[in-house]
Amino acid sequence: MMELKSYVGGKWVAGTGKHAALVNPATEEEIARASTEGVDMKAALSFARDVGGKSLRAMTFRQRGEMLRAMSKAIHAKRDELIGLAVQNGGNTRSDGKFDIDGAWGTLAAYADLAAELPDGHVLPDGDGVQLGRSPRLWGDHVFLPRVGAAVHVNAFNFPAWGLAEKAATALLAGMPVVSKPATSTGLVAHRIVELLVESGAMPEGALSFLCAGAGDLLDHVGGQDVLAFTGGSSTGQLLRAGKGVIAHSVRVNVEADSLNAAVLGPDVEVGSDVWNLFLADVARDVQQKTGQKCTAIRRVYAPKDRVAEVVDALKERLSAIKVGDPSHADVTMGPVATAQQKRDVLAGIDKLASAGKVVFGTGADVTPIGGQKGKGFFVSPTLLVCEAPSAADAIHNHEVFGPVATVMPYDGTGARAAELVSWGGGGLVSSVYSDDKEFLAQAVLGLAPFHGRVTIGSSKIAAQAVPPGTVMPQLIHGGPGRAGGGEELGGRRGLAFYMQRVALQGDRAIVEALAGRRA
Amino acid sequence: MMELKSYVGGKWVAGTGKHAALVNPATEEEIARASTEGVDMKAALSFARDVGGKSLRAMTFRQRGEMLRAMSKAIHAKRDELIGLAVQNGGNTRSDGKFDIDGAWGTLAAYADLAAELPDGHVLPDGDGVQLGRSPRLWGDHVFLPRVGAAVHVNAFNFPAWGLAEKAATALLAGMPVVSKPATSTGLVAHRIVELLVESGAMPEGALSFLCAGAGDLLDHVGGQDVLAFTGGSSTGQLLRAGKGVIAHSVRVNVEADSLNAAVLGPDVEVGSDVWNLFLADVARDVQQKTGQKCTAIRRVYAPKDRVAEVVDALKERLSAIKVGDPSHADVTMGPVATAQQKRDVLAGIDKLASAGKVVFGTGADVTPIGGQKGKGFFVSPTLLVCEAPSAADAIHNHEVFGPVATVMPYDGTGARAAELVSWGGGGLVSSVYSDDKEFLAQAVLGLAPFHGRVTIGSSKIAAQAVPPGTVMPQLIHGGPGRAGGGEELGGRRGLAFYMQRVALQGDRAIVEALAGRRA
Repeated sequence: MMELKSYVGGKWVAGTGKHAALVNPATEEEIARASTEGVDMKAALSFARDVGGKSLRAMTFRQRGEMLRAMSKAIHAKRDELIGLAVQNGGNTRSDGKFDIDGAWGTLAAYADLAAELPDGHVLPDGDGVQLGRSPRLWGDHVFLPRVGAAVHVNAFNFPAWGLAEKAATALLAGMPVVSKPATSTGLVAHRIVELLVESGAMPEGALSFLCAGAGDLLDHVGGQDVLAFTGGSSTGQLLRAGKGVIAHSVRVNVEADSLNAAVLGPDVEVGSDVWNLFLADVARDVQQKTGQKCTAIRRVYAPKDRVAEVVDALKERLSAIKVGDPSHADVTMGPVATAQQKRDVLAGIDKLASAGKVVFGTGADVTPIGGQKGKGFFVSPTLLVCEAPSAADAIHNHEVFGPVATVMPYDGTGARAAELVSWGGGGLVSSVYSDDKEFLAQAVLGLAPFHGRVTIGSSKIAAQAVPPGTVMPQLIHGGPGRAGGGEELGGRRGLAFYMQRVALQGDRAIVEALAGRRA
Repeated sequence: MMELKSYVGGKWVAGTGKHAALVNPATEEEIARASTEGVDMKAALSFARDVGGKSLRAMTFRQRGEMLRAMSKAIHAKRDELIGLAVQNGGNTRSDGKFDIDGAWGTLAAYADLAAELPDGHVLPDGDGVQLGRSPRLWGDHVFLPRVGAAVHVNAFNFPAWGLAEKAATALLAGMPVVSKPATSTGLVAHRIVELLVESGAMPEGALSFLCAGAGDLLDHVGGQDVLAFTGGSSTGQLLRAGKGVIAHSVRVNVEADSLNAAVLGPDVEVGSDVWNLFLADVARDVQQKTGQKCTAIRRVYAPKDRVAEVVDALKERLSAIKVGDPSHADVTMGPVATAQQKRDVLAGIDKLASAGKVVFGTGADVTPIGGQKGKGFFVSPTLLVCEAPSAADAIHNHEVFGPVATVMPYDGTGARAAELVSWGGGGLVSSVYSDDKEFLAQAVLGLAPFHGRVTIGSSKIAAQAVPPGTVMPQLIHGGPGRAGGGEELGGRRGLAFYMQRVALQGDRAIVEALAGRRA
C-alpha cells in the first residue's frame, strides 16, 4: 500500500495513527493511504512564513514568474503520468484528467506570462497617484505589498491538480508562501505534483508546503497576516469562515462554494442554429464532463416556454450518447463520481429535485458500467429533470446536486424574467446566456450579473470558438456572491490582491513615487 | 426631553419601551433619548432594497454624483448648528466638531467630484478587456454593477457626522441604498443630519434609512446581496462578522476596529528642525484632538534611544498647553471623553499600559475642568507614558486606550527594527514615519506597510503642508489588517468596489463591450 506523506518544514513527513484510504472509484480498490496525525501544524505554518515567505519576498515579480514557469514545465513534463493517476484515483476519463492537469500547468504558465508585465521589483503600484493639497508636492499613492504570512489553501476533491496550481500561482506570484491541502479522497494527483515540484527545485524552500490529509489544528494558528482560501461545500466554507482564529485576527478568507449555475436560452435562438447547438453542447458537456463534478457546471436550464419540449428532446438525445463506466476503458466517456459519499449525496439530491420536478432521463444508480464489476464503483447515470412551474423556494434553486444532473425549466422569454429566475439561485459562479438579441442580452445579462462572478454570452459570431462556461480561465475572475461563497480568485492581476496588502502612501511626491517603484 | 426617531420605510418612527439617554458629556445632563424598540427591521431592510435600491440603480453615476452634491450642500448649510450639537452631545470643542462635520460634507463633495469621472451610465468597466482565444473576436471584460441589496452601516461614537457620510457617499455613488446606525450615545448630530438630508429632498425615497438606537434583529435578515460595514471596537466587530446571517449568506463585511497607530522618528531628524516639529505636532494633536478618540490617533511613539528624553520633554511641554474643560467655553482646547464608560475604559487602560511603562505626564481623572462642575463630566487629563524596554507581548502593543494617551518607546534607529516594533501592534490603520533619509524610509515604510492601510511620511519638503496622519482623506484608502479589522474604505474609486459585484463578461467582443458600456 502506497503511503502518501506531507511536505512540511522542508521535508516529507509520514502521518501516524489512523490513515484515510484513497480508492479507485471505479473499482473501490484501495490504492493509497494518508494521515497527517502527528504533523506539527504550528511549526509548518511558521516555516512557511519565516523561511518561504522571506525568500519569496526577496524575489522580484519577474523572478517569481520564472519560478512559476519552471513549476508549469515540471508538471507538463509528467502530463501523461498525472493523467493516469487522475483516471485511477479520480474516476476521471482521460479527457477529464487532461482538463484538470492542463488547467494546472496552463494557469501557472498564464501567471508566469503575467509576471512579465509586472515590475522587476517588489512593490506593485495600484492605479494613479493623486495630488493631496494645493501644491503638487504633497502626494498620495497606493501600492500592493505581499502579506507577511502564509496562504492556507484548502482544495476540493474534483480538481486536485488545477485547484492546487491556480491558487498557488496567484499566491506565489504575489509573494506569499503556500500551505496546500488537497481533499484526501482524490489526493494522489496533488501528491505527485508536489513531489515533482519539490524534485524540480523550482521553488525556494518553504514556498510550498503540503498537507496530505486532515488540516488538524492548523486553523487555530492563523494570524492577521495569513490568508485562507477554500473551495468546497458551503457548510465547510461557513465553518472555516467562522473559525475562532479566523474571526479573532480578521484573517482574509476566500470561499468558492455551492453554485446552481444557469444556462438561459434566448427567445430568438432558432432550433438547429449554431447558437442552439452551442447551448445544447454546453449543457450536455456539463452533465458529462468530470461526471458533473464541476463547481461551474450548469445545473439549471431556462428555455422559453414553447421551446422546452424541443430542448428536452435534444438533450435526451445527447445524454443517451454518454457511455458510463470504468474510465480506464477507452470507450467510456463518463466515469463514476469520486467517492461513496458523493454517490449517496447525488442520489439523495436527485430525489430532492424530483420533489419539484420530474426525472425525464436517467436511471440513477441503476447503471451497468462499461468495464465495471457489478455492484462495484460509484456510478450514477446522467440525469435530466423538468420542472414546469419553478418557484424560488424549490430545491432546484437551493440544492446543488454535485453530479451529472441538470433541470430544464420554462420562462416567459423576457430578459428580466430570466434574470429573476436565475437570481433565485442565491448567487453563483457563472451563468450563460444564449442569444443574438441585444435588447434581450442587456436585460438578461446585466440583470443576472450582480449574482455572479462571470457570465458567458453565446452568440452566432463566436459560436464556433466559444470557451465553455464551465471552463475557468486565468484571465477572468472566478467566484460569486451569496451561496457561491462571496469569493473572487484569478482574473489576471486582480487575483494577486487577495495575497497582498493595499497601502496608501502619503508624503512628498518624489519620496512616495520612489517607494512605490514608479521612479528610481 | 427631545425624542430622536428613526427614519425607516420613508417615515420617521418613534421607538417604544425603554429609551437610551443621550447626555452632554461635560455636564452629564440628559439632552435627548432614543429607542428603536418596535421598529420592524426586516421591513426596513426590504424597503431600502426594493424602493431605494431600485431608484438608485435607475440613476447613472453622474446623477448619483449630483445627489451627493446636494447632500453635501444640505449639511454645509447648517454647519454652525451641527457644530453646536457636536459640542453639546459629543464633548467636542468647536474645532473637533468642525473636523467631524467638515469631513462629512467634504467627503460627500469629494465623491460628487469623483462621479464626474465615471460613466454617465450604470455599468463601471474594470481595467482592460482581454482577448480569450486565437481570434480577436472572443473577448473577456470585467465590470462592476451595484449589489441588489442594502448596505448596513454601523458607525462609531466618535465621528457621528463623518462616519455616516463617508460610508453613505461610497455606497450611494455605487448605487446601493443605505441603512445607517449611529452610536446611540452621540447620535444627536447624525440624527440632525438625516433630518436635513430628508428635508432637502436630495435623495430618492429609500436611499437612506436611519436607526437611531440599537439595531435589534436587523442582522438576522441580511442576505447574500447585502453588505455590512462597521466601525468600532474589535470585539463588536468580531461578533458582527461571525453573525449567523452574515456567515450563512457570505455577506460582505468591512470592519474598521482597534488600531495602535505608531509614529516613528527617524535617526536623521535634528532637534528643532521642521520635521522634528511636524512629528511633535502630529503626536500632540492626536492626544488632544477629539480627546484622543480617533481610530487613527497615534498611540505609540518610537524614537531613537538617544532622542527619547528630548522627545518626552518636548511632548510634555506641548501637552501642558492643553486646556481641559467644558468645550462650550472658548478657552477650552480639549473636552471630556464621550461617555462614562469611555472614561472608565480609558482610566483602566492607562493602568494597563503602566504595567509595561511609566506615566510621565498626566493625572488621570484628577483634573479640574475649565467651566466644569466639580465631580461632573467625563474628563481625563492628557497622559504620556514611557516604556524603556518594549516587548511584543506588553499592553502597549496590544491594548488600544481610546483617549488622550500615548506612549514613547526607544528603538535602535534602524528602519528594519522600527518596522518590527510597529508590526507588534498586530495590524493598524495608519502609521507615520518622519525622516529625510531615503534608505531609512525604504526600510521602515516598506517594512511596516503590510501591517497598515496607510503610511504617512513626514519629510522636510512637505513639513509645512503635510496632512496629519490622523486625518482620513477620501482619495486614500482607510482600513488595516489584523487587529484593525481587515477592512478597506474610501480611496476614491476603490471604495465603490465593496458595494458592487465585479463580474467577468465573456463572449463576442462587440456584445461584451456594449454591455460594459465601452461602446454604444
